[in-house]
Amino acid sequence: MKTRLDSFTIAVDGEGLSGTLLQPVTAYPGVLFVHGWGGSQQHDLARARDAAALGCACLTFDLRGHEATARHRETVTRADNLTDLVAAYDWFASQRHVDAASIAVVGISYGGYLATLLSTVRPVRWLALRAPALYKDEGWTLPKCELNGDPRLRDWRSRPLHWEANRALRACASFRGDVLLVASERDEIIPEAVIDNYRAACAHARSLTVRVIAGADHALSTKTMRHAYTGLLLNWLTEMIAGARSDAFSEAAPHDA
Amino acid sequence: MKTRLDSFTIAVDGEGLSGTLLQPVTAYPGVLFVHGWGGSQQHDLARARDAAALGCACLTFDLRGHEATARHRETVTRADNLTDLVAAYDWFASQRHVDAASIAVVGISYGGYLATLLSTVRPVRWLALRAPALYKDEGWTLPKCELNGDPRLRDWRSRPLHWEANRALRACASFRGDVLLVASERDEIIPEAVIDNYRAACAHARSLTVRVIAGADHALSTKTMRHAYTGLLLNWLTEMIAGARSDAFSEAAPHDA
Repeated sequence: MKTRLDSFTIAVDGEGLSGTLLQPVTAYPGVLFVHGWGGSQQHDLARARDAAALGCACLTFDLRGHEATARHRETVTRADNLTDLVAAYDWFASQRHVDAASIAVVGISYGGYLATLLSTVRPVRWLALRAPALYKDEGWTLPKCELNGDPRLRDWRSRPLHWEANRALRACASFRGDVLLVASERDEIIPEAVIDNYRAACAHARSLTVRVIAGADHALSTKTMRHAYTGLLLNWLTEMIAGARSDAFSEAAPHDA
Repeated sequence: MKTRLDSFTIAVDGEGLSGTLLQPVTAYPGVLFVHGWGGSQQHDLARARDAAALGCACLTFDLRGHEATARHRETVTRADNLTDLVAAYDWFASQRHVDAASIAVVGISYGGYLATLLSTVRPVRWLALRAPALYKDEGWTLPKCELNGDPRLRDWRSRPLHWEANRALRACASFRGDVLLVASERDEIIPEAVIDNYRAACAHARSLTVRVIAGADHALSTKTMRHAYTGLLLNWLTEMIAGARSDAFSEAAPHDA
């Protein structure tokens, strides 16, 4: 957050007091939330409120095939949903109060997978992935539903993969921003190998924060698990945003007198 | 910081994605800096920049008898300077981006003394006093300069005083907001008794944070001392402002889903 500095004269008893007003410019870091397959923006709304309380502008939205557009559930593809995410990003980044150079993307499961791909086509400063899913590159334009029908998917997800072997991992390998990677200890859908593959792929990230929520399942089915995730995410956002703000000031601030 | 929550439809491939935008409302907590006798707003400018980086609007100003109005140095009274501070407060609180219900006043020495008095005539949520000076109630309309000429002042400042015995202490005793009290370990102007008197008087503060800067003199003559103070102040402001933001959200935020 940058500030505007203005000098004023404050009138008192026929005199003028010299004053300086410093105000944050009204452009907030942006946090774009991407829900998982079968989820909705409702899942992140409370977190978005918390992030907004940190001084961020936040956007939650429903991917095609969900909620109002659930009729497309059986036919929507990864390509469609990436188009959705890009459209949401562009709309968000164009908002007057959003600092387009400071956008965090927070994705869950399938939403995390899409978030990594977004980072290859749009500027993403911070990338938060919770239990990110991983899919084979093949069948990019097949309905997303069919991907989970692949009986070999689970086995494939249990293997170590070199970052060059997968589109999402390549996206992570080329990502130079900050990464938060949150895993569920007892994830029944995303094997540990997927997390390890993402972790290894983020070799060039400016910073990497890896956390595991003890005893948690994929969906974070208890309030305790969800609060643990919220705490991790908010702490990380606080660190990232505070760091960005002090960066923005390191040049502007004069020596303490 | 409160947020505005708006629902939007984001167009993509002839479909409409339901989205929710959460933005902080553009009203920042305010931090009003009051310099000490013989000082100027320049002393707090770097701190004000740091505070603005936390998402605050900040005002620094020169009290009458200083800088541009230095010609009044020999004649300006506590009454005049309190009038200055009230005028600066009113100007600041009326600014569009300032949340008049969330104003911190940060005073040094004589400025700390004036800050306590301001709290009796204007809403002050947070009060930060560094090496606050203390003066006898008598001679309220005498030139401020003459007060320091009193040979008994030092001895008087070395005594324990009941809060009812002094105007600034009475102001502290009736203050219900949060207080930061920072002392210099080797203050050659403000005896420990003055700090103890202020500390005891703040009995009804919502919270009290007392810190001593090791080895520091009154003016914080080294950069190390000044950075120690800046760190204490910024940490405290961060805690106060974050607390205020979460308070503002406690009602609004729904249960995590």
